[in-house]
Amino acid sequence: MSNSDSPPVPERTEQARVRIFDTTLRDGEQSPGISLNRQEKLEIAHQLARLGVDIIEAGFPITSPGDFEAVQAIAREVEGPVICGLARTSKQDVDAAWNAVRDSERPCIHTFISTSDIHIVHQLQTTREDVKGQARAAVAQAKQYLEDVEFSPMDATRAEVEFTAEVIQIALEEGATTINIPDTVGYTMPQEFTAFLGRLYELVPDLRDVVLSVHCHDDLGLAVANSFAGVLAGARQVECAVNGIGERAGNASLEEIVMLLRTRRADIDMDTGVNSTELARTSRLVSRLTGYQVQPNKAIVGRNAFAHESGIHQDGVLKERSTYEIMDATTVGLKSNSLVLGKHSGRHALRDALEEMGFQLDGQALNTAFKRFKEIADRKKQVTAMDLEALVTDELREEIPGYALEWFEVEASSRRPPHARVSVTLPEGGSAEGSFTGDGPIDAVFRAINAAASVEAQLDEFTIGAVTEGQDALGEVSVVVEIDGMSGAGQGVSTDIIDAAARAYVRALSVARARAVASADAVGLPEPAGP
Amino acid sequence: MSNSDSPPVPERTEQARVRIFDTTLRDGEQSPGISLNRQEKLEIAHQLARLGVDIIEAGFPITSPGDFEAVQAIAREVEGPVICGLARTSKQDVDAAWNAVRDSERPCIHTFISTSDIHIVHQLQTTREDVKGQARAAVAQAKQYLEDVEFSPMDATRAEVEFTAEVIQIALEEGATTINIPDTVGYTMPQEFTAFLGRLYELVPDLRDVVLSVHCHDDLGLAVANSFAGVLAGARQVECAVNGIGERAGNASLEEIVMLLRTRRADIDMDTGVNSTELARTSRLVSRLTGYQVQPNKAIVGRNAFAHESGIHQDGVLKERSTYEIMDATTVGLKSNSLVLGKHSGRHALRDALEEMGFQLDGQALNTAFKRFKEIADRKKQVTAMDLEALVTDELREEIPGYALEWFEVEASSRRPPHARVSVTLPEGGSAEGSFTGDGPIDAVFRAINAAASVEAQLDEFTIGAVTEGQDALGEVSVVVEIDGMSGAGQGVSTDIIDAAARAYVRALSVARARAVASADAVGLPEPAGP
Repeated sequence: MSNSDSPPVPERTEQARVRIFDTTLRDGEQSPGISLNRQEKLEIAHQLARLGVDIIEAGFPITSPGDFEAVQAIAREVEGPVICGLARTSKQDVDAAWNAVRDSERPCIHTFISTSDIHIVHQLQTTREDVKGQARAAVAQAKQYLEDVEFSPMDATRAEVEFTAEVIQIALEEGATTINIPDTVGYTMPQEFTAFLGRLYELVPDLRDVVLSVHCHDDLGLAVANSFAGVLAGARQVECAVNGIGERAGNASLEEIVMLLRTRRADIDMDTGVNSTELARTSRLVSRLTGYQVQPNKAIVGRNAFAHESGIHQDGVLKERSTYEIMDATTVGLKSNSLVLGKHSGRHALRDALEEMGFQLDGQALNTAFKRFKEIADRKKQVTAMDLEALVTDELREEIPGYALEWFEVEASSRRPPHARVSVTLPEGGSAEGSFTGDGPIDAVFRAINAAASVEAQLDEFTIGAVTEGQDALGEVSVVVEIDGMSGAGQGVSTDIIDAAARAYVRALSVARARAVASADAVGLPEPAGP
Repeated sequence: MSNSDSPPVPERTEQARVRIFDTTLRDGEQSPGISLNRQEKLEIAHQLARLGVDIIEAGFPITSPGDFEAVQAIAREVEGPVICGLARTSKQDVDAAWNAVRDSERPCIHTFISTSDIHIVHQLQTTREDVKGQARAAVAQAKQYLEDVEFSPMDATRAEVEFTAEVIQIALEEGATTINIPDTVGYTMPQEFTAFLGRLYELVPDLRDVVLSVHCHDDLGLAVANSFAGVLAGARQVECAVNGIGERAGNASLEEIVMLLRTRRADIDMDTGVNSTELARTSRLVSRLTGYQVQPNKAIVGRNAFAHESGIHQDGVLKERSTYEIMDATTVGLKSNSLVLGKHSGRHALRDALEEMGFQLDGQALNTAFKRFKEIADRKKQVTAMDLEALVTDELREEIPGYALEWFEVEASSRRPPHARVSVTLPEGGSAEGSFTGDGPIDAVFRAINAAASVEAQLDEFTIGAVTEGQDALGEVSVVVEIDGMSGAGQGVSTDIIDAAARAYVRALSVARARAVASADAVGLPEPAGP
């Protein structure tokens, strides 16, 4: 068992290539509380292209005009990866997926229907015969539009393998180019999944002529292991999401799959085409835009994944890195960027620094970023690449027309309740002040904003995280609010936690209000779902 | 593949019993930034006993007087599980471990030495012969003191299997009762680990007469899967930690192992003795005391592990729970406690509520808790079991003599820098005021505390999390500070984030100061480490 170091991009080409199918923007975005707008989805898709994933599942176009537009924008703008849209087996779904992805250079439609009796009986409330008919019709319809069609028998791991094989055979007859086996509820075990896939190969010999894919959920902590078992059983595509986000306990974590195959590629003769040095940044971007924090002990991208606390271990690392490290932190893009700007850095230096980080900013966007940079540089001795990344991500967020924060003032004390005053510009024009005495200073600010905006908003979620390190770290606040049953999410970044919270809250209010307005135009659309 | 529901405690007894060896207080506590005091470790150990783990690895007694005392206190107070102390193969280590655990009703010593050449050459800087001699001596010494001795060939998965087998044979000859195979650097893969263990059984037939244990790290995201592969290969003990904390990416997650075996026990004929309804609370307690947040998509104990966002899925769940749920949230102790107190609840009601939650409070401790409860009840309409749990955990923390917060006042505004004034009681008696104008309100409070305490403390870590839900949620702040190279951690809970931060900071200062005082008495002690 050799412990070979792993360069960021594969050098050898004789290894079998495993495709990375990223579903961060589809299954990941279906996580509770996550609500990405078009601009945020585009930003993530561009980063996924930079990371080198093979396929981006950009969304589920039938579910809302917003999702359709986001998939379409990604199909039009993002070059490199295949851009895929999800569709149930209905005609409208497949049409919507096609219309959303058709402008991509490499479009794909992914259609699915359950083959487990528990789903067929209780959720679809139909028969096995009907499922076969629907699968045939959907794949055939998609093939009229394009070449690249993926089919998934949903909940396959709880389905009868013989019936699932029949449905797969139908999809292949109609021309499906990828067959994806989902463990929809995260129930299977590696040895069981291996046996299931082996049996499918026996029952459907044609399966060897297309790409077999796996899509695993982490409910029992086995998503990565089951995906890996799938690869060892013959799958050459893994569906996964950045930071392992997704329904419930989420999907297989993209970064873990990639670094597992990379680190052990000499032993398993397989690898992906991902540029692993972009993993850390991709993880930070997704965490920031979704508000989903990554726990410190998360493999690969957690804050401590490469940190050694114990004395013996530290000692070992100093003596010989490989005693306790099987990967180099620079391989996943940690510690690589030592770029630092200060308060005297000019617009040019900022643009160069941003360019080096992959952000192309000019004109008004650069002006806005520079103004924000100067504000932060006045407060911090050094502005690092991480700070810049957070600020630019914050500024690049699509401005939702609605409320905006003008100023706030807060007095907090252990000896009396905190008091806040705020001024907010209103969507209908003009501005209004509000004040409140609350439980805590942030609570007081939120309620003062409610008073100024004359809304009865309810705070549903509130998370704070430090973006960067040290005494003058940038903090980021994510909030989810609800107005009259419409929820909205917002984030804010600042060295001042109250400032960050107020920015986040006002943005969330604007999003919730925009949705309330939009919902009048969009009654009766289906809710999102998927394998 | 049946999808059977899982009652919290196993009903059938014919299944093979897999022992749960919890290393939260040893490997988990070695995570960067975690620093639990004696009282906190005791609290966790009591909860682990309530959870029903088989073995508690309580610490590494040789590494510091504090760790020794914590292990000793747990050995004396905590009933039910075996209490185990870790020791390298040196005589002093084994003596320290023995002295720490000897007062337990069921003591155990766990000793280890590396069998991989990379460790033997680079870290131990010795020979294979010497390793064999050390293993023999340590197990023999431990056996003089007690019956129950566990031996681990550290870094076994990167070691030559034949040499590892030789060392294991020696440990067995000297009477080791458990042999634990660590994947110290998280490098192995399930199929490889299975083969390794199979080969060990071939080489060491006597291994069948003792308990085989596995200890896996999550660097490639496979800790649970490798542990599970170990169980399928014959292991009847899994070493794991609550929330999967531990060195780098951490250990196998206890709750995932337990619920994997429980959920699939009908198929694998194995189970643990854990009372799964205590999992959620155990997770919250460990997260709170370590300051390590659990990500929302963490399997079993993440906030969203049982949440269904997508419309199709929600629809399915409404129609038939098993369409998308393989476990019931109540099985892991979520949503089970609907207990609520209000501002008119008396001391008696509080004590009863706490008792129901497993906290036995009387006398002064009850008075303190009641005072704190009343403060919160004045601010919140309803005080839930989660609130109480957080408050009691906060109050039960051992008071470190040192600084204490008297009061604070902060003014924050978007139009000028925030200003803070504080008053702090000093360890030498009396109190002092300080003030500061900082980057953010919390930064200003921290620096004002520094000024009042006349210390030059550096903030190393700062995390904020919401303990409970809703607009008036309790927030918790964890900080790590450093004074003259001595670090200290502190936590604070409050509805006011600044109040929580100030409490946490003052506690951290007191801890760092206590350590600085203690370090003068304890030069030359080894640093912690382990498999």
